Amino acid sequence: MINVDDLIRDLEVIREQSPLIHNITNYVVMNNTANALLAIGASPVMAHAKEEVADMVTIASALVLNIGTLDAAWVESMRIAGRTAKEKSIPVVLDPVGVGATAYRSEVCKQLIAECKPAIIRGNASEIMALLDTQAQTKGVDSTNTSEAALNSAQILAVQTRAVVVISGETDYITDGTTVETVKNGHPMMAKVTGMGCTATAIVGAFSAVNKNCLEAATHAMAVMSITGEIAAAVSKGNGSLQAHFLDTLFNLDETMIRKQIRL
Amino acid sequence: MINVDDLIRDLEVIREQSPLIHNITNYVVMNNTANALLAIGASPVMAHAKEEVADMVTIASALVLNIGTLDAAWVESMRIAGRTAKEKSIPVVLDPVGVGATAYRSEVCKQLIAECKPAIIRGNASEIMALLDTQAQTKGVDSTNTSEAALNSAQILAVQTRAVVVISGETDYITDGTTVETVKNGHPMMAKVTGMGCTATAIVGAFSAVNKNCLEAATHAMAVMSITGEIAAAVSKGNGSLQAHFLDTLFNLDETMIRKQIRL
Amino acid sequence: MINVDDLIRDLEVIREQSPLIHNITNYVVMNNTANALLAIGASPVMAHAKEEVADMVTIASALVLNIGTLDAAWVESMRIAGRTAKEKSIPVVLDPVGVGATAYRSEVCKQLIAECKPAIIRGNASEIMALLDTQAQTKGVDSTNTSEAALNSAQILAVQTRAVVVISGETDYITDGTTVETVKNGHPMMAKVTGMGCTATAIVGAFSAVNKNCLEAATHAMAVMSITGEIAAAVSKGNGSLQAHFLDTLFNLDETMIRKQIRL
Repeated sequence: MINVDDLIRDLEVIREQSPLIHNITNYVVMNNTANALLAIGASPVMAHAKEEVADMVTIASALVLNIGTLDAAWVESMRIAGRTAKEKSIPVVLDPVGVGATAYRSEVCKQLIAECKPAIIRGNASEIMALLDTQAQTKGVDSTNTSEAALNSAQILAVQTRAVVVISGETDYITDGTTVETVKNGHPMMAKVTGMGCTATAIVGAFSAVNKNCLEAATHAMAVMSITGEIAAAVSKGNGSLQAHFLDTLFNLDETMIRKQIRL
Repeated sequence: MINVDDLIRDLEVIREQSPLIHNITNYVVMNNTANALLAIGASPVMAHAKEEVADMVTIASALVLNIGTLDAAWVESMRIAGRTAKEKSIPVVLDPVGVGATAYRSEVCKQLIAECKPAIIRGNASEIMALLDTQAQTKGVDSTNTSEAALNSAQILAVQTRAVVVISGETDYITDGTTVETVKNGHPMMAKVTGMGCTATAIVGAFSAVNKNCLEAATHAMAVMSITGEIAAAVSKGNGSLQAHFLDTLFNLDETMIRKQIRL
Repeated sequence: MINVDDLIRDLEVIREQSPLIHNITNYVVMNNTANALLAIGASPVMAHAKEEVADMVTIASALVLNIGTLDAAWVESMRIAGRTAKEKSIPVVLDPVGVGATAYRSEVCKQLIAECKPAIIRGNASEIMALLDTQAQTKGVDSTNTSEAALNSAQILAVQTRAVVVISGETDYITDGTTVETVKNGHPMMAKVTGMGCTATAIVGAFSAVNKNCLEAATHAMAVMSITGEIAAAVSKGNGSLQAHFLDTLFNLDETMIRKQIRL
C-alpha cells in the first residue's frame, strides 16, 4: 500500500533538487512532458543527436525512452543513451508506446530492454501484454485484454526483465514481479488528452531520480499523476482545458491536496 | 447543400467506431491534431518510420499526409504509406501545406498525388491554386488569388486528380469538380491558431473513415470544424485560449449545438 | 533606455506588414513559437529540409536558428539557411539552447556563428557564458554564473561576433558590446513554461525583421516578452494557464498596456 509520507517526501526532494531528466521521446508529447516535469519541479532536457546523447545522459539523474514516433536514427540514439545510462547506474524508464501495432515496435522494444535494462517499464494493458510477447520465454499468457490478464503479464515481464512494470488504467498496477501496488485515483477524461501516458512515464522518471526503490518511485509517480488528473478533470470541460489544468494542478500540488484526494 | 442529418450520423459513427487515423504530419501541429481527433472520438496514431508505416496504415481507417515540415526521409515514408493505403482502398487525405513557397514542396505534392491518389485534398486558396500549377495539364487559371479563382482551380484540380478538393477560407468550398458545396460558418481568429488548417485535414480524415462519399465526408468535416471554431472563438480572448476552447467544444459538440449554429 | 514610442512603432509595423519569419527550431517549442508569432502579428514558417531552406529563407524577413533538439541533418540545414540569409542580408537570430551541456552543442554554435554571422544571439546567463568559451579569443571571463559575469561575457561576445547579445533573466541585458540596455519586466513563473526563452528568440526575430537597428529590435522584443509575461502571469495559476494567457495577452497587447506596465 502507498505510504503517503514517503510519497510526499519524494515530491519534496524533486522540488528541492530539481533533477535533470533526459527524455528521448516522441514529437507529439514533447511540449507537455517538458511542462509536466517543470510543473513538478524537475528539469527536463530533450536531446536525441547520437553525437551528444551519451554526454547528456551522463549529467542527468534519469533517462526516459519513449518510442511513440520512433525511427531508425532515434532508436540508435536511444540505444546509445540507454547503454550509457546502464553503465553509469542512471535509471532508465521505458515507454513502449504502441508496441504490438507493428513488428518494428516489438523488435525495437526487445532490443532496448535487452541492451538498456530499464529499471521501470510503463504502458497500458495492451502494450504490457504485447511487450511480454516480444520476450523469448513467454508462456501461459491469457490472450484476453483484461486488467487481470495484463497484471499476470506484467508480473512475468517484471521477473524476466528485472524491471518494475507499470500498467496504467482505471486502476494502475505497479509490480516488481512479487509485490503488486495499486493506484485507484484518476479520471476517464485523462485518456482523451494525447500523451497523458507519456507524461506519466516522464513523471516516473522524475521519481526514479530521487528514490532508488523503483517500486516505490513508480507507485508514487502514478499516484501523483492520478491525483493531479482527478483534481484537474473536475474543473475541465474537455481535453483542451484538462491539458492546461493538469499542469496548473501539478504545479500547485501539495501535501494537503494529496492527503485529501488519495484513495488507498 | 449540407444534409444536417447525415452530418450528425457521421459524427455519431465516428464516436461509436473510434476509427484509427494514421497521420504523417508536421511537428508543429502533432499535439493539436492528435487532441482534435481524440476530442471528436477518433483514435489518432502518428508514425513515420519507413520500417513500419505500411504495417501501421494497414490497420488504420484513413491516412492523413501533411507536408508542413517535410524532408526527404518523411516524404519517402509518406509515399510508402500512401501507396499501401491506395492498394488497400484506405482513403488518403493530403494537406499540401505551403505548396508554392518552394520548388521542393511543389515537386513532392506532384509525386504524392501521382503515386498515392488522394481521395481528398485540403488547402487554403493559394495552396490549391499553387497545386494546380504543379499538374501538367494546367490551363486557363486566373492568377489572382481570389476565392472565385481558387474555386475554378479547385474544380480543375478535382477533375485532374479525381480527388475531392477543399478550399478553406471565410467560406469553405468543397468540390468533386462538378458539385460545389459551401460551408459558411467559422471565425477569423481561427487563422491565428497555428495548425488550424492541419486540424481540419485530420478531421476530414476522420469523416472519410466513416463515409465513403468523399464529397459528403469532406463537407461534414469542414462544417464541424467551422461550427466548433465559431462557438469556441465566441468565448476566447486570443489564440491561446481558442486552442483550448476549440478542443473542449469539439469534445462536447452535439446535435443541438450543430443545428443551432449551422448556416446553410 | 528603452524608447517606448519606438517600441510601439515597431509593434505596429509588425502587425501591418506581417513579416515572414523562417524558424529552424526545436520540436518542443514549435507550436508555441508559431502561435506567439501569429499572436504578435507576424507570419511563422517552420521548414528544415536541406532541399528547400535556401528557397524558404529567401522569401523571409528574418531567420531564427534554435539548436534545442539539434542533430546532424538539422545543423546542415541551419548552415545552408544561415549562409543564404547572410548573403541576402536577412537578419539571423541564434538561440544557443543548452550550449555548454555537451561538446557537440558548443561545436555547432561555434560553426553557426562563424558561418552565418548572426545579427542577434539570445540565451540565458549560463548559455551566454558557455558560448563565449567556444570562441577562440576568450580571456578574463569570471567563472561564477552571476548576471554581472554574464554581462561581461555578453559584451566580449558581442565584440567578437559583431552580434547584439541578449541575456534573459530576472533583468534582461541587451548589448552590442558598448551600449547595455536593460529590461526589468517579467515574472518568475515564465521560467516554468517550456520554451519561453525560445519564444523570446522568435519574437526577437519578428522585431529584427522590421527594425534594422539590432540593439533596438532586440530590446523592444525583450520588453514585449517581459511585459506580456508579467501581465499574463498575474492571472495564471500555473504554467499550464500561463502558456495560454501569454498568447492571449500578446494577441491583445496595445500601447495602453505597454505604457502602463513598462518599468524603465
